[in-house]
Amino acid sequence: MTTQRRTSPNASRRSDASRRAILAAAFDLVGEVGYAKLSIEGIAARAGVGKQTIYRWWPSKGAVLFDAFLMLGEGADGEAALPDTGDLESDLKAVLRATVAELNDPRYDEPMRALSTEIAHDPELAAAYLERLDRPMRELKKHRLRAAQRAGHLAEDLDLDVAVDMLWGPLLNRWLQRTGPLTPEYADNVVETALNGLRPRR
Amino acid sequence: MTTQRRTSPNASRRSDASRRAILAAAFDLVGEVGYAKLSIEGIAARAGVGKQTIYRWWPSKGAVLFDAFLMLGEGADGEAALPDTGDLESDLKAVLRATVAELNDPRYDEPMRALSTEIAHDPELAAAYLERLDRPMRELKKHRLRAAQRAGHLAEDLDLDVAVDMLWGPLLNRWLQRTGPLTPEYADNVVETALNGLRPRR
Repeated sequence: MTTQRRTSPNASRRSDASRRAILAAAFDLVGEVGYAKLSIEGIAARAGVGKQTIYRWWPSKGAVLFDAFLMLGEGADGEAALPDTGDLESDLKAVLRATVAELNDPRYDEPMRALSTEIAHDPELAAAYLERLDRPMRELKKHRLRAAQRAGHLAEDLDLDVAVDMLWGPLLNRWLQRTGPLTPEYADNVVETALNGLRPRR
Repeated sequence: MTTQRRTSPNASRRSDASRRAILAAAFDLVGEVGYAKLSIEGIAARAGVGKQTIYRWWPSKGAVLFDAFLMLGEGADGEAALPDTGDLESDLKAVLRATVAELNDPRYDEPMRALSTEIAHDPELAAAYLERLDRPMRELKKHRLRAAQRAGHLAEDLDLDVAVDMLWGPLLNRWLQRTGPLTPEYADNVVETALNGLRPRR
């Protein structure tokens, strides 16, 4: 992503490096100490910057952490669209298996739990999350489902938001509430069951 | 529920009343102040008992809160089985609409968020929750689904755990992460979509 800046190229590169160091430090620290013990002081120390540098750009630790998650999203920008090989079932299995791998990755597990539980208790953060992270991701998912619907692979009257919830909701819920093992086989099973439905097909 | 006690009937009635007062106080307080600020002192003051009375029965505030949730479950003991009118779709809609009503009830919303987020961060509490609350509830749900499967209303090879996750997961996830309005219509839509599946039925 390119942005217009009025500062000199060198200053701009320096602030960009500081910004990234701060966000990476926030992400790593929340995974180590949890959200409650995350502090601007701690982030500044880990990133090797002064507290004032952080306060110049962000009003609170929540705002820093949130931007850290947005940075992760930016990094994956090129690959953000869902695969479309024409085979919906195998594409969805690939995507849900990747979600399982990410949720099981110790590097992401704690920070994502911290963000999820902050959202659960903070309606304002939830609204920002919805607007800036959940909705753009959801649009990418619905884009792939809409293509499948046009091709006649999904029911004509299907509510695509419910379809997204039915594919990703079970995984997220099982991960967050620890109600069972989150495996690639479980992801496959969810995809097959969602596509076919619970009722017999004759 | 009846239990064998070795104390005199009067003493037993008194401790039972204290126990219920403590659990009700814990449940109400966590809804008001959140889990982080919940304390044994606060629960004791609200219940009108001494701190030592609480420590005699429970090792921690988490243990008290957990039993408060179990008490709620006991209260609904008689109605815990899922309805079985022979019409699976309408029975599931009734149950999921009741779940929506409970999740939207301000009396339950905060305590359940507190329990959910503690579970997300505490694998030991999650294991206790799984064993004592999630699994018994899940068995009741699977019991109803198994009857429908025997009657030929559900696919023969259906994994009933995945079916439960697919019906309740989207509701729980939407509630906890606040990703959309949790309405009776949404519950109906989830039931219909899960039963029919995302693929067209011809």
